Amino acid sequence: MTGRLFGLGLGPGDPELLTLKALRFLRAADVVAYPAPQAGESFARSIVARWLDRGQSEIAIRFPMRPGPVPAAAYDAGAAALAAELGRGRDVALLCQGDPLVYGSFIELFARLAGRWEVEVVPGVSSICAAAAAARLPLASREASLLVLPATLAEADLARRLMTADTAVIVKLGQHLGKLRRVLEGLRLLDRAIYVERASLPEERILPLAAVEGEAAPYFSLAILRPHSTESTHS
Amino acid sequence: MTGRLFGLGLGPGDPELLTLKALRFLRAADVVAYPAPQAGESFARSIVARWLDRGQSEIAIRFPMRPGPVPAAAYDAGAAALAAELGRGRDVALLCQGDPLVYGSFIELFARLAGRWEVEVVPGVSSICAAAAAARLPLASREASLLVLPATLAEADLARRLMTADTAVIVKLGQHLGKLRRVLEGLRLLDRAIYVERASLPEERILPLAAVEGEAAPYFSLAILRPHSTESTHS
Repeated sequence: MTGRLFGLGLGPGDPELLTLKALRFLRAADVVAYPAPQAGESFARSIVARWLDRGQSEIAIRFPMRPGPVPAAAYDAGAAALAAELGRGRDVALLCQGDPLVYGSFIELFARLAGRWEVEVVPGVSSICAAAAAARLPLASREASLLVLPATLAEADLARRLMTADTAVIVKLGQHLGKLRRVLEGLRLLDRAIYVERASLPEERILPLAAVEGEAAPYFSLAILRPHSTESTHS
Repeated sequence: MTGRLFGLGLGPGDPELLTLKALRFLRAADVVAYPAPQAGESFARSIVARWLDRGQSEIAIRFPMRPGPVPAAAYDAGAAALAAELGRGRDVALLCQGDPLVYGSFIELFARLAGRWEVEVVPGVSSICAAAAAARLPLASREASLLVLPATLAEADLARRLMTADTAVIVKLGQHLGKLRRVLEGLRLLDRAIYVERASLPEERILPLAAVEGEAAPYFSLAILRPHSTESTHS
């Protein structure tokens, strides 16, 4: 008997944006695992903290929080810790902020574990949908497309992709806020972008990107760009 | 005293993918409104049918189900019916399959009502995330982008946009399945596309797009295209 791995999308941060299904799997798991910084609290764990303390074991998978790609060794170690529990026949709930398959560490852990273990993915409310709801901006309608891309891309690449987008959501702003501002200024689209920080949380902030100062933004921030906003909402 | 409008994302179809927040607003509303075909059941209503029958009024907003754009008059009539309830001071829950701001009739109704009435949007699990979870395919990771676009676009436009995509999700397959197959064949990418029908429902189907026959697909179907799937999952 081996255990099963459940990748649980927990939504963007508001504990009420948990799904009934994620809650059921969370409560049924023997082990609750989550990404966490080297020191300090796990954001994913904080979303469901009110449902924990049921005698479940917990595994914090520690990731370096410095800018740049996470080393493969960190994922390898996390996958090994999960595999050890699965091998003991214990069901593991792996907590994922937002949706597990949209820019999450789950993707890397899943790639290392799916071949050997039974995995079920429970989709969640993505931070992208939560940001759009908070800002009350349509993401896509009718014949329009939606482009989601990370601000970590090179400046020329960002410009080339954003130039032809209908609606675009730029994630992972972090250290790349200043670069994105320059790219949008170059495209004369800066006034078409809305900045959303910590959507769905009490400290949520929504303002024009042009009004956001500095070169860096918090990790949980994104921008919604609607180059043709009049047409796509009202035509 | 005027009522408030709540746009509730209900998720892709599995009633368990409802969020706690959507459930709370659903139960608190005086009126429950939903899109429905000219004759027959509303899919959005079916997702939450187990929570209804609490003495709430119901409003079915009827839309023609024929292919092509919905006439503006249908949205106008729906918005007028909602406004009449809001004007009486009644809180209205408007049910939205998936997420309200991703290709939903909510966007059109919201555009007609948001100026005059208080509106809150509750994000939901999008059908796109649900399809990816069902097929166990990452939507975006690391520096990759995600493009979502409707199959209703012209053949040349589809080809041009898909050619440069990292991961792409093609929605609204419907009558456009044959066209999409031809486009992907032309790009030599047909073998990189997975077809997902009615994700999260008991009748869910997942298969290679190349194995799907015919020119048309059900409305609730989409394709996930990962042109460079080996690199993006495992590198």
